Amino acid sequence: MAGTNRSRGIEGAEQRGPAIILVEPQLGDNIGAAARAMLNCGLMDMRLVQPRDGWPNPRAEAMASGALVVLDQARVYQSTAEAVAELDLVLATTARERDVSRDVLTPRAAAERLHLHTAKGGKTGILFGPERAGLVNDDAILADAVINVPLNPGFSSLNLAQAVLLVGYEWYQAYAPQDSETTWGDAPPATVEQREYFFTRLEEEMDTAGFLFPPHLAPTIRRNIRAMFTRANLTDQEVRTMHGVLSALIKPRNRNADNDTSQ
Amino acid sequence: MAGTNRSRGIEGAEQRGPAIILVEPQLGDNIGAAARAMLNCGLMDMRLVQPRDGWPNPRAEAMASGALVVLDQARVYQSTAEAVAELDLVLATTARERDVSRDVLTPRAAAERLHLHTAKGGKTGILFGPERAGLVNDDAILADAVINVPLNPGFSSLNLAQAVLLVGYEWYQAYAPQDSETTWGDAPPATVEQREYFFTRLEEEMDTAGFLFPPHLAPTIRRNIRAMFTRANLTDQEVRTMHGVLSALIKPRNRNADNDTSQ
Repeated sequence: MAGTNRSRGIEGAEQRGPAIILVEPQLGDNIGAAARAMLNCGLMDMRLVQPRDGWPNPRAEAMASGALVVLDQARVYQSTAEAVAELDLVLATTARERDVSRDVLTPRAAAERLHLHTAKGGKTGILFGPERAGLVNDDAILADAVINVPLNPGFSSLNLAQAVLLVGYEWYQAYAPQDSETTWGDAPPATVEQREYFFTRLEEEMDTAGFLFPPHLAPTIRRNIRAMFTRANLTDQEVRTMHGVLSALIKPRNRNADNDTSQ
Repeated sequence: MAGTNRSRGIEGAEQRGPAIILVEPQLGDNIGAAARAMLNCGLMDMRLVQPRDGWPNPRAEAMASGALVVLDQARVYQSTAEAVAELDLVLATTARERDVSRDVLTPRAAAERLHLHTAKGGKTGILFGPERAGLVNDDAILADAVINVPLNPGFSSLNLAQAVLLVGYEWYQAYAPQDSETTWGDAPPATVEQREYFFTRLEEEMDTAGFLFPPHLAPTIRRNIRAMFTRANLTDQEVRTMHGVLSALIKPRNRNADNDTSQ
């Protein structure tokens, strides 16, 4: 259900997210950092194919800190084929191959394909090769398509955890609301009536101070000042604050002369 | 020009990208990693506000490796206000504030706002606070809006370089083609004529082998097999390979019996 997908319900995301398969990872630190990146994106299913330094790995645990839950559930396999055996859509992050015909997806397109597949009840996974060397061809060929991250072609190398983060981030965005929002503090936005009352008071005081002069320009001046305050999306508290500022400014009437020269 | 924006021309991106302002960064490693993340995304303008361990920083250089060019051009400032003084759109990555009325943008919405602003000739920048502590309010208030990365609310903490990477990645995507593509290896895709010739040959051999039986199901069987091969987007080389496979399979005619039982 689309409504459920767009909620922040991470329980659903955990069950439905792709498995992250790290093939022959070398450094425990990188496995721990990858676990953090996974949990950042609500991904829980880590699979390790022949981790170089064995498993469990204390350095991975030290680096994972808050994301130990991912390491605790990680499963270890002897081969990549075993690790992906029960999946039915496998994507691989690997360098573009020039000798094989294959779909090459951006992380965003990959996220879309993963979600479509999961919605049909499929089980998905993403292969990440060893640091530096990358996936060997026999592993990459297990994948249905390849993910290529569009980055500066002059400097596109990412470490393992960063690659997991970018791919996971795009996957997570389909669950996360993409709309901008405005925080209002404790105060609700001002009503039009509240704004209008402030504008009216301000305009009266400006008129008294001779600011709305010459008369044929007054409507334009009024409109510009209203637009400026309206654009600021004032809260009701802020409107009250501005009433206070206005009252304070008009109290010592001799300040009006200063205002005129500062125009 | 839209055409130029969508090209991979990184020279343009370098000139137009937002400044990345690291406020009181503590660890040189993080500054170096941030430089790498910036260069990944074609961002060159690094600004440092009171880096804790002074500048230059050997640990930053060691970590930056291929991205030294970013560190070499980095500028150091005594205050955040100085660092952003000549910019006219400043965004801040910071925790959501509950006590101030402000626009909160996703990295994607932020990228859009940055690009729109740059297109009008504006100069932009993004503030990143110190590790752990984050931006102090007096610095955050310099920003026009806040960037909040939608991540697992139960585990949303990112390190400095990862935050720079995600925000920079979204900025870069507006320059990068988002379309999926298919690599063809050295061979071009097969023409319809080449495919048709193969299908015709395959169907003749299937018919000879008794596979297209009973006759009223033959059209469906034919259609399904065609669909499968068409979906695979064969190259002309692959069609030639399949001709070879077919020729090899039909050579010892006694194999046809095996095929029947495997149906």
